[in-house]
Amino acid sequence: MGDNGYAAWLRYDQMTDEKLTDEYKGWTGELVLPSGVPVEGVLKTAAQELSRGIRSMIGTTPTVTHEASQQRFIVLDVLGGGTWVDQASGIVPALSDEGYILKTIHEADREYIVAAGRTEKGALYAAFHLLRLLQSGAAIGQLNLIESPKYSLRMINHWDNIDGSVERGYSGRSIFYEGNKVLTGSDRIRDYARLMASVGINGIAINNVNVHREETFLITEKLLPDVARIAEVFGEYGIKLFLSVNYAGTIEIGGLTTADPLDPNVRAWWKEKAAEVYRYIPDFGGFLVKADSENRPGPFTYGRDHADGANMLAEALEPYGGIVLWRCFVYNCHQDWRDRSTDRARAAYDHFKPLDGRFEDNVILQIKNGPMDFQVREPVSPLFGAMEHTNQMMEFQIAQEYTGQQKDVCFLIPQWKEVLNFDTYVKGAGSTVKEIAAGRVHAYTHSGITAVSNIGNDENWTGHHLAQANLYGYGRLIWNPELTSEEIAKEWAAQTFGGNEKVQDVIVNFLLESWSIYENYTAPLGVGWMVTPHYHYGPDIDGYEYSKWGTYHFADHKGIGVDRTVATGTGYSSQYTQPNAEIYDSLEACPDELLLFFHHVPYTHQLKSGKTVIQHIYDTHFAGVEQVEYWISRWLELEGLVDEERFRHVAGRMNRQLENAKQWRDIMNTYFFRKSGIPDAHNRVIY
Amino acid sequence: MGDNGYAAWLRYDQMTDEKLTDEYKGWTGELVLPSGVPVEGVLKTAAQELSRGIRSMIGTTPTVTHEASQQRFIVLDVLGGGTWVDQASGIVPALSDEGYILKTIHEADREYIVAAGRTEKGALYAAFHLLRLLQSGAAIGQLNLIESPKYSLRMINHWDNIDGSVERGYSGRSIFYEGNKVLTGSDRIRDYARLMASVGINGIAINNVNVHREETFLITEKLLPDVARIAEVFGEYGIKLFLSVNYAGTIEIGGLTTADPLDPNVRAWWKEKAAEVYRYIPDFGGFLVKADSENRPGPFTYGRDHADGANMLAEALEPYGGIVLWRCFVYNCHQDWRDRSTDRARAAYDHFKPLDGRFEDNVILQIKNGPMDFQVREPVSPLFGAMEHTNQMMEFQIAQEYTGQQKDVCFLIPQWKEVLNFDTYVKGAGSTVKEIAAGRVHAYTHSGITAVSNIGNDENWTGHHLAQANLYGYGRLIWNPELTSEEIAKEWAAQTFGGNEKVQDVIVNFLLESWSIYENYTAPLGVGWMVTPHYHYGPDIDGYEYSKWGTYHFADHKGIGVDRTVATGTGYSSQYTQPNAEIYDSLEACPDELLLFFHHVPYTHQLKSGKTVIQHIYDTHFAGVEQVEYWISRWLELEGLVDEERFRHVAGRMNRQLENAKQWRDIMNTYFFRKSGIPDAHNRVIY
Repeated sequence: MGDNGYAAWLRYDQMTDEKLTDEYKGWTGELVLPSGVPVEGVLKTAAQELSRGIRSMIGTTPTVTHEASQQRFIVLDVLGGGTWVDQASGIVPALSDEGYILKTIHEADREYIVAAGRTEKGALYAAFHLLRLLQSGAAIGQLNLIESPKYSLRMINHWDNIDGSVERGYSGRSIFYEGNKVLTGSDRIRDYARLMASVGINGIAINNVNVHREETFLITEKLLPDVARIAEVFGEYGIKLFLSVNYAGTIEIGGLTTADPLDPNVRAWWKEKAAEVYRYIPDFGGFLVKADSENRPGPFTYGRDHADGANMLAEALEPYGGIVLWRCFVYNCHQDWRDRSTDRARAAYDHFKPLDGRFEDNVILQIKNGPMDFQVREPVSPLFGAMEHTNQMMEFQIAQEYTGQQKDVCFLIPQWKEVLNFDTYVKGAGSTVKEIAAGRVHAYTHSGITAVSNIGNDENWTGHHLAQANLYGYGRLIWNPELTSEEIAKEWAAQTFGGNEKVQDVIVNFLLESWSIYENYTAPLGVGWMVTPHYHYGPDIDGYEYSKWGTYHFADHKGIGVDRTVATGTGYSSQYTQPNAEIYDSLEACPDELLLFFHHVPYTHQLKSGKTVIQHIYDTHFAGVEQVEYWISRWLELEGLVDEERFRHVAGRMNRQLENAKQWRDIMNTYFFRKSGIPDAHNRVIY
Repeated sequence: MGDNGYAAWLRYDQMTDEKLTDEYKGWTGELVLPSGVPVEGVLKTAAQELSRGIRSMIGTTPTVTHEASQQRFIVLDVLGGGTWVDQASGIVPALSDEGYILKTIHEADREYIVAAGRTEKGALYAAFHLLRLLQSGAAIGQLNLIESPKYSLRMINHWDNIDGSVERGYSGRSIFYEGNKVLTGSDRIRDYARLMASVGINGIAINNVNVHREETFLITEKLLPDVARIAEVFGEYGIKLFLSVNYAGTIEIGGLTTADPLDPNVRAWWKEKAAEVYRYIPDFGGFLVKADSENRPGPFTYGRDHADGANMLAEALEPYGGIVLWRCFVYNCHQDWRDRSTDRARAAYDHFKPLDGRFEDNVILQIKNGPMDFQVREPVSPLFGAMEHTNQMMEFQIAQEYTGQQKDVCFLIPQWKEVLNFDTYVKGAGSTVKEIAAGRVHAYTHSGITAVSNIGNDENWTGHHLAQANLYGYGRLIWNPELTSEEIAKEWAAQTFGGNEKVQDVIVNFLLESWSIYENYTAPLGVGWMVTPHYHYGPDIDGYEYSKWGTYHFADHKGIGVDRTVATGTGYSSQYTQPNAEIYDSLEACPDELLLFFHHVPYTHQLKSGKTVIQHIYDTHFAGVEQVEYWISRWLELEGLVDEERFRHVAGRMNRQLENAKQWRDIMNTYFFRKSGIPDAHNRVIY
């Protein structure tokens, strides 16, 4: 297997442990499909993937047959299909449509491993699971696994533009487009579908939510034949294709003069478009929409609201089972920095909460995890769970826009887990985000989780090899949010970098610490931003301070932070259900890591940690650099244990990370020392 | 005449004063060229321009002849050519090659106005002068003017790229290039040459000093035929064409592996190139070079110095009379902001002063007016005049890069006059910049003044109509630096906006105040920058504070400014000759407007004005906005007096200027109030 990272976690390196190889060989000589060897469809994909993985790891190709002839073998099947496997599997507890079992069955004269799903898709996931076990050298003689995904929608959003650029992409250009053309002939799209299916992704929106002129044609006959070819490849891997649409499509390409969602001609145009899309792509997923946000068009122009807009599209998609993913990232992006009463954090809740119950059943509101924009630290969006009668899904960002841009390592699973485990209390204790997103707190008809992709056409997909862990981990986490960050990191590292214990130890522990390191050397205590405008990488403390974006820290010579309390601030804290509202509102109760998100405090304010705010800033920024230096030294110990190509590549990126960390340390510390005049308690170098 | 601004100051509007028209008509019926009516060359251009202007203003076309037949006429001639004009003109004091006379001669039976130059070029300037007088309604019955330009090189530098973009251009795209092609077929180039010749410009470098890949070919047969067509047009207007060259040309397009200036192959290549250029353009001016600066290649790579590099090119051009313009804008552009010992202001002097005497006679060092980079306020570069044995010329920037980008009005003549009148004392009192640039302090073989162009393909050339005044004024000032700013503004306004007294009053006074207004609302007291990185427009106080560019203000909670003193700072002040060195070095003696350029002081430091630094910041920033508001109100009074098109256009730009001024006011005041904690003495609104 090449070491350029292209195979990611599906390396299937040839096994070196002879004993284990012999053991596996015994089981994998024969692959039995009792319902017949399929000539097409997802089950065929599952069989192919199993064969390919086994051949690659073990060196022999399994015989694929519909009837067992050996004493040990693997069975791949769909449960409830009436084959003998149903009986052999025994009683299987309720599986979701995409669930599966992995079970070793011992009979008198034969032993076999059943990899079987409730559907073909489940069988594919079972196959990937089995391959993962083999790749990790697990014991397979006594398997008894039953798996169902926690979320029915497990999506990825691409911010790819048809010119080939990727908005907030840090790993090359788009794999889907170049030069205003769809890249239908690319192997990469199939390889990408494999990677995604292997971690359970079942829906991908392939174009940027900011839909420009050319992308508007993606839902027309001009481009649909090409899009359909991608959908076909996706379909073989159980993935539905979604498209972002231009809300003003009726005007831009429809020849109408309005995009009023209540206008009969507008509604007719969208119905026609939906019909056209489904003619080309029968299993099309639906439309993703960013409307009335950051200068995008939307229903506001016509005095309508988001429900009117979303429902119009929902009506068009409904006959085909399609859904509308309507983004809630809506705020005033022409704010006057002088105006302290407007609070961007309030915007999503203020816009959408009053509309609860007004949306069609096939609309899902897509809500970013925090109220601002994918910062290294934010509170959970108070809109999430606040609408009992409106489908919602959570949006994460795998792309490291504000979190190191895949130059710096920032393993985001711990962050996402904090979000998922956050208790909103909207229906009393236990109303966690992860349960709301699963439709188990409110009875949503559709729900799930989505995230912005971090891949591009870089050889290794994600720019930084270690950034693959976020992509892998995202899929695994939203299949089963009970997995720990450590379990996920270990799974990924074993498959991607092999079983060496030292390699595992360094990679896993670096990953687990990396979010906290990144937070240490960047914006402190939840205040956010302080990054270089537009690029969002590297420090510029005042870069957004006097901007139109609503992203301020209000630092003066005495203190820092945004007062979002009810009594003296913007009242944002009141958007939360109790006890969260009063916790955040209280200077005493508010957790340290979010202090500056909710409160403006003097630099001398004492944190729960016992430190003052200013000393916390100094200490974390010195610490962040030291931590990066430490992990560089640990990584360098892996020379010879990790292949040369990836060893050098990662080492190079880590040096860039160190440069970035030093810039942050020195600029932050200098900025706040100059501003406050308070010296570092330990007299370290501040410029 | 159209009101789109295309004609600039050569409008030649039809005269409305009947009496004056009749008077002029009497003189302009016949245009006599005693040496014969030319069929080509600059004298032909002069005759054509006179005819064209007269026809346009007076309505009748003069008869062009070589012999006078009327009683009143105009004579256009070259002095010393042996015609009767020589005798009629009498004894003319020493004229430079480009000098001319404008003299009304009364004989018994006839009266005539002699417009005659020492050369054809002088005659052309005489023609434009006469037209200017007519356009201004001046009396012409008793003319007795003798004019010689103060500077022999009166140049313009274009920062135009061959792709059509203009670096730091604020008035559209290039008039010379588009899409990697030279625009040979364009009327604009001729019209531009007219405008430039009309104010005495005699040399134009037509491509950016940052010479990229494609521009490197401008000195090759690939592009020389096209360049030659521009040179031909220029030639008709007495303008020499110069080209910026890529120091690494030998490597990039010459097939050599080195650009070592002492390498015989490198020298041979440049000689060959020079020969080639002169084959196409016999009157080619020379090469303009930015080397070893801002990541451009240069002799340093080969362990050579600037003299080695410049002399190599000089040697190649010498046989043809060409010159090398070698820029001194050389500094470390990868400075570490943490390092306070490196001072960008020192760089040009430190690099070049030790090389005095080492440059060939046909090399001129081109030195920016200040030690930094065309800020609204800087001291004069201490390098200017410091090299007795090395030709020098001064470089200004007409393009308003840091001074409002032709959205804000900033008439720069007063700034340039301050520079020209600055006494360097390098050879005792009276060693002013204007005399040094004229080669009258040190005996330079070549000298003069150059400036970065502010034009583009906008209909009105300069984006803002009022920015034409800087282009006009630059030419007039470097013809005669004794002209006052007011005289120049009045000349320009009369020709460009006509003779209405109120219009004159508003435009002239707004222009004269505009530099001080711009300084009021931007960076205070000579500290510089505080602009949005890269764009250089609009405030970002810390935008360059932690950058690699060496452009810092060092503001903390106590004070601000750059310590460039000898005792405690970078010692930059010592680069000046006494008494300037001790004046700048002294906190007491240093002029207020340069205080923060030379000293770091507390906000409470009292200026000579009696105000503290912080109160000065507040007051000037409130004042700047009020001044813009005042001039908007004055401009609005001109409705109906200025043509609708230009009235609206300027009003629109002034509103943009007001927005910019308000942003500056509020961000500056807020920044320094937050940082210092010192309130405004007048309790005005600070956010």
